Formats: sequence, structure tokens, C-alpha cells
Amino acid sequence: MTTLLALYRRPDGGDDALQAFERAYSSTHLPLIAETPGLRGIRVHRVTQRLGTTTDLALVTEMDFDDRASMDAALSSDAMRAAGRNLREIAPGLSTLLVLEAAQELVPDGWQ
Amino acid sequence: MTTLLALYRRPDGGDDALQAFERAYSSTHLPLIAETPGLRGIRVHRVTQRLGTTTDLALVTEMDFDDRASMDAALSSDAMRAAGRNLREIAPGLSTLLVLEAAQELVPDGWQ
Repeated sequence: MTTLLALYRRPDGGDDALQAFERAYSSTHLPLIAETPGLRGIRVHRVTQRLGTTTDLALVTEMDFDDRASMDAALSSDAMRAAGRNLREIAPGLSTLLVLEAAQELVPDGWQ
Repeated sequence: MTTLLALYRRPDGGDDALQAFERAYSSTHLPLIAETPGLRGIRVHRVTQRLGTTTDLALVTEMDFDDRASMDAALSSDAMRAAGRNLREIAPGLSTLLVLEAAQELVPDGWQ
């Protein structure tokens, strides 16, 4: 499994700006993501706390693909390119994208 | 679903230090996490790329609980306290812990 992990910081402008971002993310960005070829799952989370201190992260989204080749094909698709353009409109400079590879062999037996 | 998301930065010392951290994380930290009451799942990932630039993140782990109350009980358990002490030994200052709440209502129909 290869996962594209998107971390979104809070926009300036307080809770109103955050709610506007969430609405735009849900109504304009995620519908483009949903059309991405090879996508196996989308999990969206709100960041409710950072243990130890405060955080400027507001949303965390995971997008799952079978493997790196499928994700690379997805990243070059029309849907994902449109999603990238959309993100530069609704959340300029607020996102970090990480490529994750499952490493379940590190997990104890019974939890893989 | 409430998820505890742990982000781990690379230790100083290059690939040898990273491999030593991975071994200690797998052999001493995750066995303590696995004993945590209320834990529903563990997913460990290696960060293989940051799109756009480099990253100092090396590992990302998700620990799932039924809800915030279950996670709070887990955080105060002996197993999780021991895991916290362990982490301060094997990766001092390298981790960030975020509390995530599922926000699947933001996801388009058919992908919840």
C-alpha cells in the first residue's frame, strides 16, 4: 500500500476562515480527488489536539493506492492535476504532501 | 474513530542512525503500544518522499481507538506511559503527536 498523506495548516482568519476552507475542500477539492484513477480510499480527519503543545495543523487526509506506480499514474492524471490547481486557489501554501509506504513488518505479531 | 498520529523526524547520524531507531522502535516501543487497552489498530509507514521538497520526517504511525474517551483512557494506561518513557530514550525530541477525529462527512458520496 502506498499512501499520499496531505497535512493542511489552518488558514489565517480564525474559525470563519477554517470553516470556509473546509467547505471549499469538501465541495471543490475532494470531488476531484474522488475521480483520481487508482484511488482505493480517502480518509479525512480534523486535528483536534497536539499533545504537548498547540498545532497549526487543521486537517489530515490519507489517499490510498495499491503501490507507488499506481500513485505516480494518479499524480499525473487530469483529475489530480486539477485538484492541485484547486488547492493552490483554496489553500495557497497551506499543504504538505508526503508519500508513505506501509511498513507493517515493524508491527508486533497479531497487529499486522 | 479517534486516531493518535505520531510523526517521527529522522535522527541525526544518517542511515545508520535511522536503521537503529527503526529497530528500537519495532523491538521496544511498538510492543508497549500493542499492549495499550482499547487500541483497535496500528499502521506504520515509512516516509519515502515529500512532494515538492525534501522532508525530515522518517516514520508516520497511526493508532486507532473507538473514540476520544477510549484514547484518553489509553493515554493514561501503564502501557502507554511506558511507551512514552521509551520514546524519550530511543527518539528524544523527534516525535510529534496529533489527535485526529474522523471527518468522513467531508468526503464525496461513495467514498465514505
